Amino acid sequence: MNTPPAFNHVLDQTMAATQPIITLLTDFGQADGFIGVMKGVMLQIAPNVRFVDITHDLPPYSLSAAAFLNNWSFGYFPAGTIHLCVVDPGVGTSRRALVVEAQGHIFIAPDNGVLTPILEATGGRTVVAADKPEYWLANVGNTFHGRDVFSPLAAHVARGVPVSELGRPVDDPVMRPLKAPAITPERIDARIRYVDRFGNAITNLLKPQFERWASERGVSPEEVEVQLPGVSIRGISKTYGAHKPGEIVALFDGFDCLEVAINQGDAAASMSLKEGDEVKLIPAAGGAWSS
Amino acid sequence: MNTPPAFNHVLDQTMAATQPIITLLTDFGQADGFIGVMKGVMLQIAPNVRFVDITHDLPPYSLSAAAFLNNWSFGYFPAGTIHLCVVDPGVGTSRRALVVEAQGHIFIAPDNGVLTPILEATGGRTVVAADKPEYWLANVGNTFHGRDVFSPLAAHVARGVPVSELGRPVDDPVMRPLKAPAITPERIDARIRYVDRFGNAITNLLKPQFERWASERGVSPEEVEVQLPGVSIRGISKTYGAHKPGEIVALFDGFDCLEVAINQGDAAASMSLKEGDEVKLIPAAGGAWSS
Amino acid sequence: MNTPPAFNHVLDQTMAATQPIITLLTDFGQADGFIGVMKGVMLQIAPNVRFVDITHDLPPYSLSAAAFLNNWSFGYFPAGTIHLCVVDPGVGTSRRALVVEAQGHIFIAPDNGVLTPILEATGGRTVVAADKPEYWLANVGNTFHGRDVFSPLAAHVARGVPVSELGRPVDDPVMRPLKAPAITPERIDARIRYVDRFGNAITNLLKPQFERWASERGVSPEEVEVQLPGVSIRGISKTYGAHKPGEIVALFDGFDCLEVAINQGDAAASMSLKEGDEVKLIPAAGGAWSS
Repeated sequence: MNTPPAFNHVLDQTMAATQPIITLLTDFGQADGFIGVMKGVMLQIAPNVRFVDITHDLPPYSLSAAAFLNNWSFGYFPAGTIHLCVVDPGVGTSRRALVVEAQGHIFIAPDNGVLTPILEATGGRTVVAADKPEYWLANVGNTFHGRDVFSPLAAHVARGVPVSELGRPVDDPVMRPLKAPAITPERIDARIRYVDRFGNAITNLLKPQFERWASERGVSPEEVEVQLPGVSIRGISKTYGAHKPGEIVALFDGFDCLEVAINQGDAAASMSLKEGDEVKLIPAAGGAWSS
Repeated sequence: MNTPPAFNHVLDQTMAATQPIITLLTDFGQADGFIGVMKGVMLQIAPNVRFVDITHDLPPYSLSAAAFLNNWSFGYFPAGTIHLCVVDPGVGTSRRALVVEAQGHIFIAPDNGVLTPILEATGGRTVVAADKPEYWLANVGNTFHGRDVFSPLAAHVARGVPVSELGRPVDDPVMRPLKAPAITPERIDARIRYVDRFGNAITNLLKPQFERWASERGVSPEEVEVQLPGVSIRGISKTYGAHKPGEIVALFDGFDCLEVAINQGDAAASMSLKEGDEVKLIPAAGGAWSS
Repeated sequence: MNTPPAFNHVLDQTMAATQPIITLLTDFGQADGFIGVMKGVMLQIAPNVRFVDITHDLPPYSLSAAAFLNNWSFGYFPAGTIHLCVVDPGVGTSRRALVVEAQGHIFIAPDNGVLTPILEATGGRTVVAADKPEYWLANVGNTFHGRDVFSPLAAHVARGVPVSELGRPVDDPVMRPLKAPAITPERIDARIRYVDRFGNAITNLLKPQFERWASERGVSPEEVEVQLPGVSIRGISKTYGAHKPGEIVALFDGFDCLEVAINQGDAAASMSLKEGDEVKLIPAAGGAWSS
């Protein structure tokens, strides 16, 4: 990334340092005021904090979608950003609130596996269960820990409280590894992991995984057949733009995942695709759908 | 709330003082750019203002939902926050624009009853009808007072104009008291006031109202029966988490109201619940649905 | 607009100068995290930038809606605001990324006609094709130029890089003029251009166009008949508020366009109106629907 000098550079840095960023990723929707109230709570504790909404429209209770989007999005933010991810917090159970410092960022989430991809990455990290009520709201209710527990924790981190001060170290966080594609020399069995707002069906096959397989097989992306029930796509394209509106396309997308899309159309609706559906890749010479 | 010392505390306070917060609560939706334009207008008048969206997806024209969410949310924000609440402004009628200073916050809204819960609260307050065109946009249109009247008023308050300077005092604001539950020694007749994004049905019964009744009757929350047409729930729970996914639960929620929910499910859709529906509470010994 | 003196005026100006505003207008939706990630990218390059969302719920791929909303909204923002408008960027084609300085604002968008109304306006301007990779992300993908190209450009402008530095001058930007109404002495043939969240049907007839025609014909707004298939509206109203809930109204709206609405109702749903439908205006004496 290029950052040419600018006259206000020093002031920028000073102000940025005092205006920490908190991202928010939830399944609360924006209709009911829950997110607004969480921001109010944080502004009371850390008056200069700035917010960026990742999304609040996750499929309700979907840990896999939350884990996927959190792991994909955090790296685009400046180091030191605080990422608040509240999905299925298990209020009223013994579920812990985790605060994790890893990869130069801070993550705050329920201990339900949503941080698995963060915790699987190599490198030093700090993981605590934030069990000190002095860093929660004074009156913690029984139903809305996003407001009463997780938001205050994020704001206290933003104010400079060290992660290690927020609770006791944890060495057994709940892990829910994302299902990886099954890769054999003959084929790749991937699955749809997420359907986005355009109806694009995003699979769990990452570009580097495909490239290793294709290189070992000696096949190019153009020589691969992508198979869905009733539909077979010849070749993996570089981009939507090379296709006519309405054409079915397989390509590696902005998430760096294999995606099945219809250029300017809704692939999921047209082809009845949904999370969990199988997507197979075989060398194009390998022939027809074999299930 | 706990705010441990932080190195940047003094700078925080200085910057917060010069970056006032305006919350927005409307039924305008976010699809049409109306909210963006209102923010642009405010930034022209008060360049350092910061915005927090409460919601823009109120049921269109719903004064009761707006009044409920505004009254619930404002107290989570720092004192001095400006709350802009625009629903059914009655553009083209003689409806006044109210600016209210009460409970340490400032509220700006049409004089249509949406501020009733704020005005019902005890304590000193200032209420003016903001009738001075010099605090509106120069060209006020006939159709979009959210942009032309209410946003400029909020921004002028943010710049430090005293509320009393914005118009003439009002002692007869429109009041639309929210319907309270009917409470007799034998039972409580509550009603659903709001259905949230998860399909939880929130009633007009507040926790303290219930606790007074239950204590006078000598019944515990576990000994109460919550009755909806065709469904009876035994006991009021402390939390969702103690229940299996799919179970019907009655509990006091993040709004501090009695709520009927299905753990990880959509109660309103499953049980065909909607705003205005009756929810009765009787001591569990009292037997079956009696309507 | 009135800006009475305020004690913090000088500090306001200093801080505003160092906290540039970027507006965002896209069809990406908010569900998938795309917008959050674009903001993260911009915050890495320009740490003090502030964001205002215009909308992310444009009808997918709708250049006409994007052009209309961008042209309507930008003028409500302070001079110097950066407007990022990403719809149908034609990733993978040779489509250029435009940066335009005009009318005191800066616009960043694909060269697909979405900036036509900006470029049609008179006055000096700078238009460049931003073809220098040093002002993009280091790794530009094939599918998400909103993040990899357009966001970095906006952030570099926010940091003070001159527009002319970002690429080579362009004198042939793609132009897609919005269809104007057909105006004859006998009648005006307008069309619905946009349906908003309330179901109001907004036409392409601007208030000044109507006023010129009406004045030449010697008719007042009350003496005009607005005709849609099966429905005829007598007179153009000043405001919604003069009508009963449920009444069909024609009026000039917050966009300054002729709009067909139902007071507190959904005109598009009730009357099956959609983008492209005809709306005719004739002097009321002119009689019945004549198509």
